[in-house]
Amino acid sequence: MNAFLDCIPCLLRQALDASRMAGADEPIQENIIRSLLDAFSRTSLTQYPAQLGYMAHNIVKRETKCPDPYNLMKIEYNQLAQEMYPELKQMVLNSPNPLETAVRLAIAGNIIDFAIRDSATVHTAIKDVLTKPFAIDHLEIFDHAIAESKKILYIGDNAGEIIFDKLLVELLPLEKITYAVKSGPIINDATMEDAIFAGLTGLVRVISTGADTPGTLMKLCSSEFKNAFEQADLVISKGQENYETLRNSHYNIFFLLRVKCPTIARDTGQPIGSIIVQRA
Amino acid sequence: MNAFLDCIPCLLRQALDASRMAGADEPIQENIIRSLLDAFSRTSLTQYPAQLGYMAHNIVKRETKCPDPYNLMKIEYNQLAQEMYPELKQMVLNSPNPLETAVRLAIAGNIIDFAIRDSATVHTAIKDVLTKPFAIDHLEIFDHAIAESKKILYIGDNAGEIIFDKLLVELLPLEKITYAVKSGPIINDATMEDAIFAGLTGLVRVISTGADTPGTLMKLCSSEFKNAFEQADLVISKGQENYETLRNSHYNIFFLLRVKCPTIARDTGQPIGSIIVQRA
Repeated sequence: MNAFLDCIPCLLRQALDASRMAGADEPIQENIIRSLLDAFSRTSLTQYPAQLGYMAHNIVKRETKCPDPYNLMKIEYNQLAQEMYPELKQMVLNSPNPLETAVRLAIAGNIIDFAIRDSATVHTAIKDVLTKPFAIDHLEIFDHAIAESKKILYIGDNAGEIIFDKLLVELLPLEKITYAVKSGPIINDATMEDAIFAGLTGLVRVISTGADTPGTLMKLCSSEFKNAFEQADLVISKGQENYETLRNSHYNIFFLLRVKCPTIARDTGQPIGSIIVQRA
Repeated sequence: MNAFLDCIPCLLRQALDASRMAGADEPIQENIIRSLLDAFSRTSLTQYPAQLGYMAHNIVKRETKCPDPYNLMKIEYNQLAQEMYPELKQMVLNSPNPLETAVRLAIAGNIIDFAIRDSATVHTAIKDVLTKPFAIDHLEIFDHAIAESKKILYIGDNAGEIIFDKLLVELLPLEKITYAVKSGPIINDATMEDAIFAGLTGLVRVISTGADTPGTLMKLCSSEFKNAFEQADLVISKGQENYETLRNSHYNIFFLLRVKCPTIARDTGQPIGSIIVQRA
């Protein structure tokens, strides 16, 4: 999926926020924004939004000399999600349809994000995701696909969210699962450190994509990840950036996501706030 | 007040929206964004945000060949405000403190904006502005200043909002008032057409600033406006852009505004959503 013009102001905003989280002073922030303005003015839009994001966050990391501007935020997200885990687990166990509830919660986990960090707001958002109809609903064939699959690759998204993913992972045949995280810090995406914190490493095989890009830019991924991807007969993809970068990439891939921006709303044809379980 | 880096993504977003309202196709939208990225990468930030906005919207007008991208929106805002006027007028008349209520409503009128266009949401927003304390409250000295002034210049802000301003204008000594609008279309700012629609031209002297910039960039204004500004012993300035551009410009200027963006929040030291009646 190509980037849209709407991605440009959004990425500049994100780069500015990241610069500040990295502790950059105003002259450095200005250097970053000017570098990005110049780069974007000449960059092709026939590339993934994730590629533009990678460019932006690499400039932030380089200019601020901070390899992980979102570090504290990720810790905060993980702690918040961890505190909520027992209650969420009960929701799944008490549900008449545990798979659907776990899928909904895994999607809801994507809500813990820049603006939403307190547990009251997260609870409201979870209630919304638990009760609204799926805008695209391939849950039934997802259920069948799980039963029939021999090797499942679950591609994660963010820190914090990874603990919500665990609720879904726990319902799947654990021995068949490989869970993928980023090879290094990029935005608030989950890395191996977060998988360890979430307790996923004790549960299933966890690998890294081999890349520290937003989404999954296959050409930058490791052979280990590419092999896992090719050998999987079911791929579960979380979040917007994986959706952008993995459309039409696998014969049996399911996207679990919440529509969070106009670019994805336009591509999916579903309004912002929609929740989607979609087989590509 | 100088622009901040935060203004850059915001203005790019605004230019993209304006291009679409002007009916530009995607290649033209892309030209506009690339032109702006290039221009902003080299532009000094030691100028008013309004100057950057003027640059952005001039590029939109030039590339789309549309002199007034916000035309339909302004008509819609005016109609909505006009429908609400009788009810708002009653609020002022029934108030134990009509001046305060009219000031609050004039500030509330600034709410009819990009995201808020339906009357239910406007009513909620009005209720908020009517009940919350002023973050900066110079209302009492504003009241005295009105009583003591001989010539009052009221510098308007947006279409729609101008009808809310009328509620305040009607409480002032009409013969002393000059109300200023923009000389031509810029964003959703009020022009003479809107002053006529609002019925202000039949009530007080209405002039144009002589400029079609956001805010009031004095060096681009007409002699007529500059004279009115210099001769006024009380200036009433509405909205953020006039605040940005008119700080420290007059010995007796009062800013009536709602804090709507991080740049103004930072400059005023008040959080987004605050309402302010401030003597400079």
